[in-house]
Amino acid sequence: MSQQPRIAIDAMGGDEGVRVMIAGAALARHRHEGLRFSLFGDEAQIKAALDNHPNLRAASEVVHAPDLVTGTDKPSQAIRKKTSSMALAIQAVKEGRAGAAVSAGNTGALMAMAKLALRTMPGIDRPALSALLPTLGDNDVVMLDLGANTECDARNLVQFAVMGAAYARTVLDLERPRVRLLNIGTEEMKGTDEIRDAAALLRAATALPMQFDGFIEGDRISTGDTDVVVTEGFAGNIALKTAEGTARFVTDVLRNAFTSSLRSKIGFLISKPAMHLLKHHLDPNNHNGAVFLGLNGVVVKSHGGASVKGVANAVHVAARLLEEDITRRIAEDLANIGALAETQAKADAARTAQSTEQPAK
Amino acid sequence: MSQQPRIAIDAMGGDEGVRVMIAGAALARHRHEGLRFSLFGDEAQIKAALDNHPNLRAASEVVHAPDLVTGTDKPSQAIRKKTSSMALAIQAVKEGRAGAAVSAGNTGALMAMAKLALRTMPGIDRPALSALLPTLGDNDVVMLDLGANTECDARNLVQFAVMGAAYARTVLDLERPRVRLLNIGTEEMKGTDEIRDAAALLRAATALPMQFDGFIEGDRISTGDTDVVVTEGFAGNIALKTAEGTARFVTDVLRNAFTSSLRSKIGFLISKPAMHLLKHHLDPNNHNGAVFLGLNGVVVKSHGGASVKGVANAVHVAARLLEEDITRRIAEDLANIGALAETQAKADAARTAQSTEQPAK
Repeated sequence: MSQQPRIAIDAMGGDEGVRVMIAGAALARHRHEGLRFSLFGDEAQIKAALDNHPNLRAASEVVHAPDLVTGTDKPSQAIRKKTSSMALAIQAVKEGRAGAAVSAGNTGALMAMAKLALRTMPGIDRPALSALLPTLGDNDVVMLDLGANTECDARNLVQFAVMGAAYARTVLDLERPRVRLLNIGTEEMKGTDEIRDAAALLRAATALPMQFDGFIEGDRISTGDTDVVVTEGFAGNIALKTAEGTARFVTDVLRNAFTSSLRSKIGFLISKPAMHLLKHHLDPNNHNGAVFLGLNGVVVKSHGGASVKGVANAVHVAARLLEEDITRRIAEDLANIGALAETQAKADAARTAQSTEQPAK
Repeated sequence: MSQQPRIAIDAMGGDEGVRVMIAGAALARHRHEGLRFSLFGDEAQIKAALDNHPNLRAASEVVHAPDLVTGTDKPSQAIRKKTSSMALAIQAVKEGRAGAAVSAGNTGALMAMAKLALRTMPGIDRPALSALLPTLGDNDVVMLDLGANTECDARNLVQFAVMGAAYARTVLDLERPRVRLLNIGTEEMKGTDEIRDAAALLRAATALPMQFDGFIEGDRISTGDTDVVVTEGFAGNIALKTAEGTARFVTDVLRNAFTSSLRSKIGFLISKPAMHLLKHHLDPNNHNGAVFLGLNGVVVKSHGGASVKGVANAVHVAARLLEEDITRRIAEDLANIGALAETQAKADAARTAQSTEQPAK
């Protein structure tokens, strides 16, 4: 794309309605001055929402979408809705009219549509859903796959690592992200064959702009000493949801504890700034925007219940990936890994030839 | 066992040393008056520790174990240590001299030894590691498998469900525990073939003393509306560790927040009772004691770093499982499920016969 970067927004997807999607896009635009938008959905609703955001209106085109993907549509139903706001937003990316699409709609439908329309990049077998999670360190951690693939082989996991590292370089501004594979132990013999094979491949891939640090267990995801956590989608989704559930569990227990006595209630009132800090740190809106990596185009999923700030974050993620040309970066790293695999295959073949030359004793 | 129930204690396993293991057993004995103990380990150290616990001493025999399984021993190394405290404790269960064993040692070694010595129960293909996790409800939730098996088929998952339900009936005093399979969505088509097949089998098993409620996602494990969460060991271990890590993450953020300003510090001091309540609720010692279910004998793993209270909890779990004869309960339920499978197979065969009798059109 030689012209200014443009983001396609599915304005109808969120639980909170068009106004939140539009207000989120407007907020994001403050951080990305050159950015332009295509807003897909009910024209009247979008235009009404734009009245409050002349800044965004000046940078946007509005495209009416007569149809709508609902939260209960199965992926197979959704992909038949060719004139839905979701389908039109993805189509804009496919045809190069936009560089990235952002939707807060039905995840399964979005994934199915994006895969069908955009196809996977050369060298990528399966796309992966990736997100940023909070840590105790200076940076968020990139985690993938979060549920796009229930079963993965070693090759898929290596591709996820490459994509996750490119994502971390782009969005977290890290030169050489520290990458680990999620496992049930840190010793080399732990886990499934797929994970051990992926680890062997990543250990050998020293030319890539990442540092592979081996395995990580679930209790170290948010400690801040890893930048990218790679896993197959089943365990990844379980980990993500369990983390969400546990955070809510702990804060609920805390709330109960704080209202258990008058003394605790007073303590709570006094320590409100601390509670705000906690809330800020755990607020999913600060980490909103999961990305389908590995497609020919950037597609970002915003949480259905995201606030204006949350939507702005998702749009910001899309803008960063677009500005930094993540698709090209991933392609380069894959070419790099492909060359490595070829060299290794040659070396292996040479070794085999040599060993068969030796007479058996 | 016709005589009084007896528990074999590997007194050497914990990070905290013999004294904590002995003090924990002594504390547990207050809740189980008839219980007797065999204490395996360094005789001199055990006897010294018993000096502070005449009550436990009166109910115990001390068996000297010249060897020791260390935290860094691989399972293959550990099983060769036939005279270690861990091996002798398991051997006592195998020979019927004790009904259950409790160890705070190397998990991989304990699992390998227990499987080798005790073998799986008739009808069980693989043992599962099971534990109680805190919830917002009235009861803890039973979760299994937590890492004994990295890959499981539908049959394994059904057996885990049967074992987990028996465990919940025994330890949580529930008549008809609510059982769910951990999955990446709650719709019927979600997840792997293994999980969907297991769900179909469990839906059909209506005669069992449990209520199968379908799938559960990771964010609902600790809400208190499920009593047993069943999963293969890879995702189970990831979920358990992620929950531990997230709880620590949230409390660390909270601690940082509370020390961020003088005002917050004062609030913290005033709300200390609330903090204590939170700490109590999250204290892993209150949920200590993971059980290897499905073996011919009860083996309980206490956390290596458990406190006296934690060890007492692990011993209490072992005592409850022994008193309630969990092994017999599981065997009965399995027989029940076996009969069901047989009836179904007959019905299927009848249907097939009938359909082949009909002439093709």
